[in-house]
This record gives sequence, structure tokens and C-alpha cells, in this order.
Amino acid sequence: MRQVGSVLWPKLRTLQIYGANTGVGKTVVSTLLLKRLKKHLPDYDVRYVKPVSTGPLTEADNRGVLSKTLYQFDEPLSPHIAARTAKEPIDDQSILLRLDEELSSYASGKDGFVVVETAGGVLSPAPSGNTQADFYRPLRLPVSLVGDHKLGGIATTISAWESLHVRGYDVGSVMLFEESRYDNHTYLKDYFADRGILTVSLPPPPAPATSLSDDEKQMSQYYADACTVPALERVITQALEAHTTRLTQLQSLPARAEKTIWHPFMQHTERTERNILAIDSAYGDYFQTYQSLPPSESQTRQRFERESHVLKPAFDGSASWWTQGLGHGNPKLALTAAHAAGRYGHVMFGGAAHEPAVGLAEMLLRNVGNPRLSRVFYTDNGSTGMEVAVKMALKAASKRYGWDAGMERGEGRGDQVRILGLKGSYHGDTMGTMDCSEPSVYNRKVEWYKGKGHWFDFPLVKMKEGKWLVEPPQGMEDVFGPPQEFENLDQVFELPDRGAVAEKYERYLKNELERLAAQGIKFGALIMEPVILGAGGMLFADPLFQHTLVKVVREHAPSLYQTQGPTTEQPDELSWRGIPVVFDEVFTGLYRLGRFSSSSFLQTAPDISVHAKLLTGGLLPLCTTLASESIFDAFLSNDKTDALLHGHSYTAHAVGCDIAKFSLQTMMEMDRGGKWNGFKKQWAIPTTGISGLRGKRATVATALAENWSMWSKDFVTEISYEEKVESLFALGSVLAISMKDPAGSGYTSTAATGLRDQLLAGTDVADSVIHSRVLGNVLYLMASMTTTRETLESIEEVVKAAIK
Amino acid sequence: MRQVGSVLWPKLRTLQIYGANTGVGKTVVSTLLLKRLKKHLPDYDVRYVKPVSTGPLTEADNRGVLSKTLYQFDEPLSPHIAARTAKEPIDDQSILLRLDEELSSYASGKDGFVVVETAGGVLSPAPSGNTQADFYRPLRLPVSLVGDHKLGGIATTISAWESLHVRGYDVGSVMLFEESRYDNHTYLKDYFADRGILTVSLPPPPAPATSLSDDEKQMSQYYADACTVPALERVITQALEAHTTRLTQLQSLPARAEKTIWHPFMQHTERTERNILAIDSAYGDYFQTYQSLPPSESQTRQRFERESHVLKPAFDGSASWWTQGLGHGNPKLALTAAHAAGRYGHVMFGGAAHEPAVGLAEMLLRNVGNPRLSRVFYTDNGSTGMEVAVKMALKAASKRYGWDAGMERGEGRGDQVRILGLKGSYHGDTMGTMDCSEPSVYNRKVEWYKGKGHWFDFPLVKMKEGKWLVEPPQGMEDVFGPPQEFENLDQVFELPDRGAVAEKYERYLKNELERLAAQGIKFGALIMEPVILGAGGMLFADPLFQHTLVKVVREHAPSLYQTQGPTTEQPDELSWRGIPVVFDEVFTGLYRLGRFSSSSFLQTAPDISVHAKLLTGGLLPLCTTLASESIFDAFLSNDKTDALLHGHSYTAHAVGCDIAKFSLQTMMEMDRGGKWNGFKKQWAIPTTGISGLRGKRATVATALAENWSMWSKDFVTEISYEEKVESLFALGSVLAISMKDPAGSGYTSTAATGLRDQLLAGTDVADSVIHSRVLGNVLYLMASMTTTRETLESIEEVVKAAIK
Repeated sequence: MRQVGSVLWPKLRTLQIYGANTGVGKTVVSTLLLKRLKKHLPDYDVRYVKPVSTGPLTEADNRGVLSKTLYQFDEPLSPHIAARTAKEPIDDQSILLRLDEELSSYASGKDGFVVVETAGGVLSPAPSGNTQADFYRPLRLPVSLVGDHKLGGIATTISAWESLHVRGYDVGSVMLFEESRYDNHTYLKDYFADRGILTVSLPPPPAPATSLSDDEKQMSQYYADACTVPALERVITQALEAHTTRLTQLQSLPARAEKTIWHPFMQHTERTERNILAIDSAYGDYFQTYQSLPPSESQTRQRFERESHVLKPAFDGSASWWTQGLGHGNPKLALTAAHAAGRYGHVMFGGAAHEPAVGLAEMLLRNVGNPRLSRVFYTDNGSTGMEVAVKMALKAASKRYGWDAGMERGEGRGDQVRILGLKGSYHGDTMGTMDCSEPSVYNRKVEWYKGKGHWFDFPLVKMKEGKWLVEPPQGMEDVFGPPQEFENLDQVFELPDRGAVAEKYERYLKNELERLAAQGIKFGALIMEPVILGAGGMLFADPLFQHTLVKVVREHAPSLYQTQGPTTEQPDELSWRGIPVVFDEVFTGLYRLGRFSSSSFLQTAPDISVHAKLLTGGLLPLCTTLASESIFDAFLSNDKTDALLHGHSYTAHAVGCDIAKFSLQTMMEMDRGGKWNGFKKQWAIPTTGISGLRGKRATVATALAENWSMWSKDFVTEISYEEKVESLFALGSVLAISMKDPAGSGYTSTAATGLRDQLLAGTDVADSVIHSRVLGNVLYLMASMTTTRETLESIEEVVKAAIK
Repeated sequence: MRQVGSVLWPKLRTLQIYGANTGVGKTVVSTLLLKRLKKHLPDYDVRYVKPVSTGPLTEADNRGVLSKTLYQFDEPLSPHIAARTAKEPIDDQSILLRLDEELSSYASGKDGFVVVETAGGVLSPAPSGNTQADFYRPLRLPVSLVGDHKLGGIATTISAWESLHVRGYDVGSVMLFEESRYDNHTYLKDYFADRGILTVSLPPPPAPATSLSDDEKQMSQYYADACTVPALERVITQALEAHTTRLTQLQSLPARAEKTIWHPFMQHTERTERNILAIDSAYGDYFQTYQSLPPSESQTRQRFERESHVLKPAFDGSASWWTQGLGHGNPKLALTAAHAAGRYGHVMFGGAAHEPAVGLAEMLLRNVGNPRLSRVFYTDNGSTGMEVAVKMALKAASKRYGWDAGMERGEGRGDQVRILGLKGSYHGDTMGTMDCSEPSVYNRKVEWYKGKGHWFDFPLVKMKEGKWLVEPPQGMEDVFGPPQEFENLDQVFELPDRGAVAEKYERYLKNELERLAAQGIKFGALIMEPVILGAGGMLFADPLFQHTLVKVVREHAPSLYQTQGPTTEQPDELSWRGIPVVFDEVFTGLYRLGRFSSSSFLQTAPDISVHAKLLTGGLLPLCTTLASESIFDAFLSNDKTDALLHGHSYTAHAVGCDIAKFSLQTMMEMDRGGKWNGFKKQWAIPTTGISGLRGKRATVATALAENWSMWSKDFVTEISYEEKVESLFALGSVLAISMKDPAGSGYTSTAATGLRDQLLAGTDVADSVIHSRVLGNVLYLMASMTTTRETLESIEEVVKAAIK
């Protein structure tokens, strides 16, 4: 499948003409512009394209340039109605592909300028029924808006501009007819100048003459006269300059970034201008990337002279660091953000309440499926949300067990209370959350890092040569037994069926806890990423092990710790037991693994859970820490200093909360509406059962899998046999491929970088490329929750071709 | 001055009719609606108001309800042109006040419904030239939009809705005439249903008859027939339900928040439904707050029955936790956010570059006025930005001085390297930044807190009884001398003139450093909030002391610390010397104190500076940590694990970066354009000099003060004499009043809460109230950078009245 992306050629300038309304003279203005272009740029190849035209063809002869209409409907109706008469439905993709081809055919070594005219107003429906501005958005052509000179035209022109603006278009100029009575142009010139947009007025065409031939004559004269006004030249100059600026900015982005930006998670000795990815825009699942710079200046010039365009769609294979849910450049997200900004801006949250924050809290508590959770604390990102979780859990434990005596004195206590966790965990980059993980490449060289916990090894789930395995950690076969093999992923999650193994896990964990308790260590929390440990290397933990660990700390902890406090009993059913259990669902929650909450996979309910990333559908930072009433109660007293004295300036900012409400609502509706059923069916388990009246044995598929992935089962199975692949897994929108590395796995392995580079360079099977991230020897790919099977299929093809 | 705010009466329903364009039948539709209202709600007092009308009065008789036009222009032109003929200019505020009064006069114990019709389209200019939707925004009345049934009307209707939506309006319904050829209503019904908006079509009016009397007759018939369609009832029902929902939601917000929200910085035993501030919306400098609930249910009912409206404007006196720059509900911020969302969404920043991030980095480095700074690291809030700053500084020091040997082994080192700072500092809520402050109420009860530094006492700047003083800390008069008195604030900042005191400071600090070094403590950074220490209690530090501290650590540090590394020399002029100097400008920077960077007050340049809060004009979270090349270089090696392995999912999110670019640009233009000159003049120092040819001695004012405040000098001086006031200061948009507390100052003092509560309850001198925050015995007020003198004057009046 060809991927339509944003187009940009060094020598071919494009300008898309939108109208603030129908009947504002789009075609007359386009004709004037084209005539002026011919005059002003005599050496240019000047073209005109009308992708979709309704009503009788007019003005064609007058333009004096090569013109093309791609789809023509005779009736002067909105294209979505006119299209009903077409023999076959015309989808957006087909028109865009044809337009892309048409434009590409104009791009040559020669300078060119092509005017692309739209039909109707900015949001008039395209043949498919999608609005014009949404339909054309993937190309993101630079725009000149024909304003409305009539009574009311100030309003329609500004609103039309706003509709383009919120969809990420660059509107460089507004052209409209001069009209002295309403004087719209005077108002609009000032209004748009304030927003950096050139506005020009043009002489209005004459009133229609009584005879057709007179009309033709007077229009001909009008064009000849009107096209000489300097205003048109200003529009052309603006378009040429904007084109050059866009190219120059894009071309210079890597060098400018190299000079000013300190990139996250990067060893900058490895950074050069050439390996910085310059992004012009993004839409749906794809970045629009500027192609990396050629090495020398002469080659740079050469690039600018060749015909192929300089933007390439790159599949956002990390879902922009695991955040994307509803696609890039989503106008609904943009409008939701703008509405909250328009209604509230940001209002401080100290002792305050507003509907976005309270409504979101209620929505989370209602849907997270955990009866323990009753309180929502807002922060800005997963790391700060986890800081809060740690503060909550340790305080609750310290208070119940009396470890907090005398805390108000002295310089603080540092690490007297520790946490339990899993090896390879990652909970954020702030130092408090770093201290929740064992020493690793991430934290070891941070001056103030000090691991404050004990971390268990655990068995991993993976697919190898078509089989699902649960593998014990190296050297622990004696404790956990040999690798377990499963027919399918659902069996791995059938925890009650795995009792024998559960007993082994429980015995081991209980012994370990006793050993640690004997050393006098106090533990104040169990902290885990449920199911998949993300930044630690995409480790799929055996859900039975995680389930058992929760069980063990809840059942055995109180007797194991040096409890001196007045209360060691759990006050009620929903209160925390043993030690508070914290689930870091920042990455795994909110449908990333296919379910609202990832704790449901573990058939257990944490006392605190943290949610971010997908929370805002992939637009901007927000995080929520959910806690149970018994955690909340631990901070109650008559002393203000016992409170959780934490809060960020933009706590519960209305824009983030409203975006989150919209995103969660959308994903829940997708789930309930069966939007992912295609994926779920694919992963359904063929079961052998009695089918039909005749009692004939047959293989029937369970309707929908509970543990499913957007990545296809056949693809995953096929890849698992590849020689370079050690193992892999897919769950929800996540695919993680461990590449074999004789030198060992881990963050510093380079076993996966070859595949990553190959995917970014492109393959023969597609014209788009894949941008992916690696974690040591693991290459992972992640989709948005709106990515289609067709798109994923094309990505799977590329991966298969690259991995062979 | 009366403050126009959003209006909401329990029994009076309002509905504002906007038109998607002129000529869409707003008046006809309003008339139909009014007729139906009379029928459907016979007991209601139904009214019609047209605040501004142009063209001849029509339809008035047909409405059959009490109608009122507030401003009438005869010409059927856009109001901004029609208004040119008016005797005197009609400003927005006057019209809104008159409309507010008019509406208030309808509110009574009786149920009522008032239809407010606008003029022209959604963004047609009001008499002042402001657009309708912007002009009416402070009232934020619920809206029904009259859609456009004509060709192209789908586009104009949706765009009009988007313009209302991004301005924070609640559009509940769309009404438009049925038109079978273009069939706009069918398309729009689906489109808006998907967005939760009711769309109905109405029978179109007949074509104008040939005679006026026939026309009247047929319109009369039309109204009689058409007003019976069920569609109108649905619109009315929607409006009634939306009104009830809004009231119910607002009324229930405190209770719902009480149940689900864990508030920041709050001891929840002190929280009740009654002290949670419910915010309906915000505009400019004001929250629109729901009045707190009366105690009993019967009283609640009573409240709902009385006529006064239930929203009250409350001045956002904490600038929403120090974030506000360009006012709440700013449509330009909303559109900028939406544009970035439409163009990019969020694109991951690992090794990537996009114009918003790179452009913002360049803008910051260009304007911060510090030649040392060359690199920008992005995070999400001040706390995470400071975590990064600490990691940067400690690593640079450890590397240069060879303290990092063997760090890759073991469990981390915790606190072997410490920081220097000031007492009362506050750098954020994450545990790493908490460790940068001395033990205090904020951090002492956090289980993992451990203060990792040494913090100096310092002299404070304050105004007392009209005089500026620099007071040494208690018990340190012997070291720093007695309090110093100054004629004006500028003298305090004339650092070179204060040489004698500087010597005292230097001697003291050098001795202290030597004493600490003798204890074998290694210091890796000096971390300070320049000029004002915020959360620690709004402490105005003597700039000379901060200046001298930087000088001392730069000049004396290398010889004092146990330097074992190969390099103890500063490689070049711009490299850090002694130890890295970090300025936490999160609160004080970016014009909060009147200047782009607050380090300029100290006449020194830090090696790292952190900027947030005002960075995004007060809309959403973003933070930048700026660093010098020599700090950056400390992380370079051939080993990836030497890199700064820090980064958040939404690092450098495009929405935040574009908003920040817009906000900084706007504030810089305000500065350059002299928007604050009124404030600056006020604080200018009368100097005695020779004026004019005659050589006569006269008092002439320095044109513009360099150290100025938006709060007036007279007001500040007057308050400084108040008996309850210990001292105060004003700088930039910050005013901080220390109240006398015999029990001592500090976070747990309640000396300022009385004043806070009084300001929120309201006074006789104004009908709006002031929402403010206290820090112990300090009540502070903070304005946006767009707040006008008139607004501040009204606030000053209230404060004066309350403080007496």
C-alpha cells in the first residue's frame, strides 16, 4: 500500500486555495493568481489542479496555464452529494493518491508552481463525506484562503482560518475582493497582520453582463486589468518565501538541534546532524520526516535540484515513546484542548474543583475495575506520579507499623524503609523513582542514586519457534522448575490452572521474605509494572509470579516485619494488607495491552495505581495516582505537616483533564463498539468442541480472545522462527522482538540496532519507512489504538523483509 | 469598578443565539423559538434581548414576548462600522454591563427564559471592533447556533461552531432551515451528534411576497405553523436540561471532589465541601466561582430560589500558583495549542527535532542574557527540571574533581556529594529536589527525604513603614551589621555602591566554606532561587548576598574541596568555576519580576538555569533546563551510560513548545512596546538634577524604573504602615505582605489566613472577591502580565479595606 504523506519538493511550489465560503470567488481569484504567476515567473512551469470539481467547467480557457481536473461532477452541489451519482464510491485515499501522482509528475529539475483549488468552503464535505480540510490534511499543502467580501464575511473568513489553523495548516495569505460598503478587507488586514498572515484585497469582477459573449469579453478585460495589481505579487512573494523558509528550517533543523538541544537519553558523542530526525509534521500513524542531509554541500545542492520530494512518511513505531492512542494531528483532540483552554486556561487546584478534573477522577475510578481505589492525585508525568505513589505507600506503612516515630526531628532518614520490586523495573527518571529500581545503567552514574529496595528475579513469558514459553531466570531452574510450554497465550493467563507452579513461587517468595526480614530490613511497599516491564527491556513477566508475589506480601508481610505500631491489623476488606501494593501502569495501562487496566491480567487489585502516557491520547503530559481510602487515611491528622505536601503548578490542568476524558471515552467506546474485534478474533483460540445438531466434532473458534494483540498471530508466529530472533511477544498494541546477541542482552547491546537502522532506511516492499526504538537487544513496535489492520499489515511486511 | 463575570441564575435560563453567517435567519429562528417558549412554558417569564442591533427593527411584533434592544443602529452594516456614526465610542465593557443589568432585572423568584440575540456571524465585529464571540465571552452564556442552510453552509456552520468551541462556549444545539437540495441539515445532524450537540431543522420561511401586507400575513401564518414543530421543543428541552446539568454539576462539584480528589498541599481533615472552591470557568484575571454551599438542605433550596446569580468573579490572586501570564481563556493561546496539536500532536523527542522545540530553545538562549548558556533540556515541570539541573551539576563537579571514580559499581552512593543553598529554599516536590532543601515542614515527614546540603542564612529585603530595609537574619547582626536603610529599591540593587557590606558577606561566606571543607564535605553545586525564594515563604533575599555567594564559590571553591581529579582548572571563560551555579528561576524568571531572566538582578550568570511556570503563559506544563557547554561536555564519552539518561514521554511536546514560543514572544513585545511603562514610571525615582536652560534645580523623574512592580508604589507604601503588617515588598507582578504573628512566622502560622478569608468573602468596596493563597504569615498576590492598572487598583482598594 502506498502511504500518502505530506509533500514538499524543493523546486515545485504548491499553494492550496481554500474558500472562506462558496461563492467568494475562489476560481476567479485562482485565475488571477495563475495569470500573475505566468507573468511574474515566466520561466516557471505554472500549473493548476482542481482535484474535485462540481458544476460546469468554467474559466479554463482564461487561465492560460495547463489545467487539470481529476474528478468532475456536473451538478453544482456539495461533492458528497454529487458523488452519490458516481458509479463507484470515491474514497479519500484514492483521490489523494491520484493528486499525489499528479503533483509528482510536475516535479522536475525545473522551477514550478502549482495551484490546487478545493471545492466549496474549508469544511465542505469531500466526496467521501469527510470535510475538505480533514480530507486534504495528510498532504498539508501551504494554503492561501480566499476571504469573504460580503456582509458577514469577516466572521466567515476568520472562522474558516481558525478551522484550517486547528488542523495544523500553514495559512500564509488571505485574498479577498475589495468591497467598500462592508469594508471587510480593512478589518481583516489588521486582524490577520496581528497573526502573521498577509491579507490583500483584489478588484472585484464586474457584474454579469446580459449576453454570454459580452460577459466573456468583460471578464477577459477584467482578468487582464486585475492581474496587474501589486497585491497578487505580494501573495506570490509570500508563497515563494514561505516555501524557502520551510525548506531552510527543515534542512537546518538537525544542525540547529545539534547546537542547542540536549536530547533525552542520548550519548551526544553519537549524535551528528545526520542522525537527528527532522520532523515537519505528523498525521495518524506517521511522522513526516525530512530526509537526512547528504554529507557534502555540493550534494546538498544536488538534492535540492532533483525531483523527488524531501519528506518521507515514517511510521511512528514507538508510538512516540508509548504515548500515542488516537493518532497524530487528531482534530478532535486539538479542538478538545482548545475548548478547555478557552473555558479555563489553567486554574490552580489548591482546594479547588473543576469539572474536567473531578469528571476525569470519577471516570478513572469507575472504570479501573478496582474496588479498593477511591482517591485521585494529579501530577504531570509518570515519574512524578510514581514519586507520589512511593510517598503514599511508605507513609501508610510507616504509620501503621510505627516506623515514623520521631520523623519530624533531624535531617530526614533517607532509606530506613525500603521497597520490594522486580529486577529490570523502571519507574521514572526523577531520583526518588530511580531509587525504586536496582542499580542499572540508567541510574548507576547518577550522583544521588541509592537503590532502596530488594528486587526479585522472575520468569519471563515469550514466544519461541511458534510456542509460548514461561522461562525461569537463568540458574533458577532448581527453584522454579524447567521452562513451561503453553499452547497459547490464554493458558499462560489461566492462573487457577497453574496451581503447582504457584506453590513453587509462593514457597520461594516466602522464604526470601523471611530471609530479608531476618536481616532487619523494613519494607514499606511492593512496586511493580504489571505484565510488562517497559524501559527495563520489554520484559513480559509471568503473570502468575506477579500474582503470587502480591499474595505473599499481603498474607505474610505483617508477621515478617518489625512491627512496633499500635495497628498491625487491616481495618477492613478494602484496606491494604501486609504492605501497600503499588502498580505502575504508566506504560501498561489504559488499553496499551488491550484492557483498561493492566492489573486485571494479574487477577489482583493494587492499593495504589499510576496512569499516564495513553491517558491523554498522546497529546500532552498528565498523570494520575489512584489510591485506596486506607492509604488516604494515613495522611489525616490535625497537623498540616502530616499531609501529602506535594503539588505541581499545573496540577490537574483543565486542558490535560479534558483531553484525558475525551481520550478515555473514545477508547472505551471503541472497545464496547467492537472496533478491536478484528484483532481479538484473530487471536481467538481454536477449540475442539461439539458443533451443530449432528454432534459432529469440529474446530470452532472462540469468538474473541481475551489476551490479544493488534499484531497478527500469523506474523508473530512466523517471526518467532527467524534465525536472528531469540524470542518475541505481542500483547495489545505492543510487539517486542528480542534479537540474538552472543555478547549478551541488556541496555548496551547493539544486536537490534541493525534492524532498527534497516527499518528507518526503508525496504523494497514499501515507500514509507519505520521509525523504531530499541532497548538493548530488543526492538519493539507499538501502534496507536486507532491504527488499522491494513497499516499494520504493511508494517509487518516491511519487518518480515528486513528481518530475513 | 463593577466586574463583569459569567452569569448564572437558578431560575432564569439564558440562551444566546449566534449565527453561522449573516442571512441565515437568526431573527426568524429566534422568533420561532420565543413563540414556542411561550407555548411550551406558559408560566415562564419569556424575554428577548438584542444587545446590539443594526438595520431597521423587524419582527418585534411577531415575537409576542417582551423585547429589548440595548443599542440600535439604523444601517444594516457590521456593528463596528455602524458604530462609527454613534455620538460616542461604545466599548465592550459598557455594553456588557448594560446587558448584565438587563438580565439581572429579569431574574426573580419566577422561572424565566431569556433569548439573547447576537449580530451578524459568530466572529462579526462588535461595535468596539472586537469579535462577537470574544466580546461576549466574559458572560459565557449557553449557546444555540443558527446553522447555514445554503450552499456551502455545512462549512460555515462547522467553522462557526469551532470558533465558539475554542473560546470555551457551551454550544448545546444547532438549528437551521430545512433545504432539500443541499441537504445541509442531514449532514450536520450526524456531524454534531458525534460531538454531543443536538441539531434540528426547521421549516424555511416563505419567499418574500410582492406586497408588504401580504408578506406580513404569510409570515404570520408561517410563524403560527412552524412554531408547532417538535424540533423547537427539543431545543428548549436541551437548553433546560443543560441549565439543570450545569447547576447540578457546579453545585455537586465540592462534594464530588471531596469524595474522589486527593488535593495537593492539603491536610484533608481541614477540607469540607464548604471550603472547596468550585470553578465554572475563568476569564482574564478572574475565576468564575460557584458560591459555597449553604449548610443545610433547606437553605440550599432557598438559595436556588432567590434571584441573585450563583457565580461570582474571584480575582485569581495567586496567578494560579504563579503560572498566569496572558490571562485565562485567552483565545490566542487556545488556537496556538490547537495548531500545534493539529500539526504534530506529540512527536517523541529521542534523537528528533521539530521547529517548536528547536525554535523555543533558540529563543530562550537568545534572550536569557547569559552568554554561558548554550544547551536546552526539556522536562515537564519545575521539579523535574530541577532534578535534571541537580544531575547535571553534580556530574560535572564529580567528573572534574574525580569524585566519580568507581560509581558504576555498587548500589549507588546516595549523598557523598552535597549542595550549597539558602535556608527557606524550595525546588520542587520530587524527592531529589526535596533533598536540595534543608529539613522543613514540606519534606521532614517524607520517608525518603534526606537533606543533602548546607544552607546559609541570609539578609532579607523588605519595606517597613515606607522604608526599604535590608535586615540581617536574627542573631547575625554581629556578622552582617545592623539593618541597612535605603531611599528606594533601586539602591538595594546598586550592588557596586554597597562595597563595604559586600566585604562583610564575602568574609563570612569564605569562612563558612572553609569550615565546611574542613569537615571533609564535598559540595557539587550552588543552588538558589534568585531574588525571591518562593514556596519557602516569599523571602526577598538581599541581591548583594546572593551575588557575593556566587562570587565566593566561584573564586574559592576549587582550593577548598578535596579535588583529586585531573582537571581543577576552568577550561575557558564561559566554563563553570569552583562549583556549578544553578539558578532555579522556575518562579522568578520570564517576567514574573519584570525581567526576562531574574539572574540579571544579581549581576551574575549561572551555569544552569531552570524555567517553567510563565513559560507557557499559564496554560499547561513545560519546563526547560538551560546549561552551559562545560556542563554539557561532562556527559560526553564513548560510553552511553555516561549520558544524561533522563527523559519523559512528552519531552518537548509540540503543544507546550509552541505555546511557550507564543507566550515569550508576546511578553517580549509587551516589554519592548512599552506596555508596562505605566508601571515603570510609577516606580521611577525622583532625582534631583539640573533641568532646562536656566540651570534651575528641580526634581525630575527618571523616565522608567528598572526595578518596578505592577502594584502601585503609593499602595505598597500605605500598606507598609498598617499595624497588622510586619513588612511587605512588591516586585514585578508579585506583592507579598508579612502579617505580624506573635507566635512566630513559618508555614504553620495562621496570621495571614484571616486576611485571606476576608478577601474571599468580599468587602463593601467591590462586588467581586479575591482568591489568594498564604504561606504561613505571608499573604501574597500576583497578577498576570496582562492585568491592567484599573484592575489592580480595584484589588488594591479591596486589600486596603480588608487590612485596616
